[in-house]
Amino acid sequence: MRVVEVSTFVAAPLGGMTLAQLGADVIRVDPIGGAPDHTRWPLAPSGTSLYWAGLNKGKRSLCVDLRSQQGQEIVTRLITDSGSDGGIVLTNAVGRSWLSYDALVKHRADLIHLQINGHHDGTPAVDYTVNAAVGFPLVTGPQGHADPVNHVLPAWDIACGLYAALAIVSAERHRRLTGQSQRLSVALYDVALAMAGNLGFLAEAEVGKAARPRLGNYLYGGFGRDFTTRDGGRVMVVALTGRHWRDLVAVTDLGEAVSALEGALGVDFSRENDRFAYREVLAGLLQRWFGDRTLAVVQRQLTATSLLWSTYRTFSELVDEHVAGIRTNPMMGVIDQPGVGQHLAPGSPLSTGGPERPRPVRAPVLGEHTNEILRDELGLSESDIDALRARGTVASGKVRR
Amino acid sequence: MRVVEVSTFVAAPLGGMTLAQLGADVIRVDPIGGAPDHTRWPLAPSGTSLYWAGLNKGKRSLCVDLRSQQGQEIVTRLITDSGSDGGIVLTNAVGRSWLSYDALVKHRADLIHLQINGHHDGTPAVDYTVNAAVGFPLVTGPQGHADPVNHVLPAWDIACGLYAALAIVSAERHRRLTGQSQRLSVALYDVALAMAGNLGFLAEAEVGKAARPRLGNYLYGGFGRDFTTRDGGRVMVVALTGRHWRDLVAVTDLGEAVSALEGALGVDFSRENDRFAYREVLAGLLQRWFGDRTLAVVQRQLTATSLLWSTYRTFSELVDEHVAGIRTNPMMGVIDQPGVGQHLAPGSPLSTGGPERPRPVRAPVLGEHTNEILRDELGLSESDIDALRARGTVASGKVRR
Repeated sequence: MRVVEVSTFVAAPLGGMTLAQLGADVIRVDPIGGAPDHTRWPLAPSGTSLYWAGLNKGKRSLCVDLRSQQGQEIVTRLITDSGSDGGIVLTNAVGRSWLSYDALVKHRADLIHLQINGHHDGTPAVDYTVNAAVGFPLVTGPQGHADPVNHVLPAWDIACGLYAALAIVSAERHRRLTGQSQRLSVALYDVALAMAGNLGFLAEAEVGKAARPRLGNYLYGGFGRDFTTRDGGRVMVVALTGRHWRDLVAVTDLGEAVSALEGALGVDFSRENDRFAYREVLAGLLQRWFGDRTLAVVQRQLTATSLLWSTYRTFSELVDEHVAGIRTNPMMGVIDQPGVGQHLAPGSPLSTGGPERPRPVRAPVLGEHTNEILRDELGLSESDIDALRARGTVASGKVRR
Repeated sequence: MRVVEVSTFVAAPLGGMTLAQLGADVIRVDPIGGAPDHTRWPLAPSGTSLYWAGLNKGKRSLCVDLRSQQGQEIVTRLITDSGSDGGIVLTNAVGRSWLSYDALVKHRADLIHLQINGHHDGTPAVDYTVNAAVGFPLVTGPQGHADPVNHVLPAWDIACGLYAALAIVSAERHRRLTGQSQRLSVALYDVALAMAGNLGFLAEAEVGKAARPRLGNYLYGGFGRDFTTRDGGRVMVVALTGRHWRDLVAVTDLGEAVSALEGALGVDFSRENDRFAYREVLAGLLQRWFGDRTLAVVQRQLTATSLLWSTYRTFSELVDEHVAGIRTNPMMGVIDQPGVGQHLAPGSPLSTGGPERPRPVRAPVLGEHTNEILRDELGLSESDIDALRARGTVASGKVRR
């Protein structure tokens, strides 16, 4: 499968990278000098964007003057003259009529065109604004906090990018069965709104009796919370099932206290609704146990149970082999990214069952494959390519180390 | 495509629902009485789980005693004797050897089997514990806050469920091309770790100079923040590009103040790095403008600009047509869910370009399709089905209104 991606920021690049990790030949097309995301933070000490490098792994890079007619013709040909595996475009660009479904389908009748939008009507939105609009920041964060709490993880971009990859694979499968073209679109806001609905938040607001409160780090409708150990360690603990709860009570030696409470209050903590209703009482009892022990002791004791729990880690701890064992994860590998150097990077989290997981592949430098694509995919001669470069219609980048 | 789903909670059910929304026949198999997620909060006033209903829309439901050999044989036959469109299983069940790839592939050589795990080695994890382990809670939340801030949105479950749907469509496409079976797996923790890497957080911790601070609601590396209006309204504003920034300065009439600052400080706020470095100064100036105006005035003035912005909404405001226009969104529809009644629900955020978007389809009640599946898919007679039900091997549910 060959996908031409004209993209910026997170959702569209992640969609393309996900397809590349499944084996597709993904060509990211950028304007000369790069799209606005090319210098996005975080940066390596050299100034190279770790963000851009992370979201474009395993793609080829073509740099073209997208405002020139000749540049637009090159991209159009790359999309439409690309054999039975091609004719697929993934973009979040707006206002480029030459890149629209209607323009491109004239050149290729079985075109697959996926447009990522902010809103379904084509108006713009980004993860930050979508998140504000769909309710989550007002229920996230410490109990009693009055202000919205934005997420740092761009969760909507991630979901939107994965929907984009799914849409393209589904459309390509459909094209193999029917020969049909597909005009696909997905809006970032719709992804967020759909998930708010899928998880019951919309229905709760529409048919429920009371607005959901801000619960801090408590699990809603069950028992889970973070606890602090004597030496300042932080642990998230979740008792989702009856067995988890029994194990939590046993390991913390709270059986008697819990039974006495159940008798006095007329409740049954084997029921998760009762655990939720008295979550603060239970957490208070449990915190004494955690606060009396070091993190190492807590970890050793919880490991022997069925409980779902984890230490909170900083990103620095996460990449520290002694803390997180990250180098033994078969998804992780070391790549040598120009401008960054050797560092750990993830491959695809999807395992297709082979004995070896595919290794992560570094991102291209901007324009790294311009010459090879013009020559091999579009059949241009070296002198044609030189002339395009001299005119500023294309640009190529070299890997410097 | 026919998918048999043996699942609980979010990721696997969302994966199955996503396939159903793309047109697959998805049969969710539950133990008699339901899996542990069947009563999960939030609940409708009747006690029906809005969460379960939201994540199982458009599926068929079969209830079987999964501990009995005969129940296991029924599910095995449903997976393996299901024509060229079938032979696909999606599960997050662990410790059920009869449901493993190795057991099922003996009955069907071209089996597609996707196992969702907590960790890649099969050990359990849930969204809350995975999130604690991958760093985000320690950079989310108010500046100066010392504690971790869990997300309320189960973002990892969502990403994992979408990867699951993508994996199955990709494997089924591959099977059509090659006839090959595929043994697929995806771990919730790996999804989170991959995204921390894809977005540059891991590389920043490994090769960057300083740990990323907690930034509250500020955008990292650019300019964006929430502002409060005179009447207590909340607005998220993002200036991602130079044009956005010029528009923000113009609409707030801060051109002179910003120029004076640039001169005095020797900085250039047309550069996003400078906007980020002086974000608190700029936000302080801007907050005075927002604080002098009502939300209605702010909305009217921002609408006339290129800026990316949104009002923060509660979930209640989101489902209020007068606030959010939710009923005119072509993805949304009204479904009549047993135990809940008529309410708004989302269809798929993927639009495949037809004039009409597919309407959302309600979730089944538990066991609603038990009889029809045993009869139509497995060829059992009514008396066979009655005998199975009498023995407690299967159970059927009826829609009561």
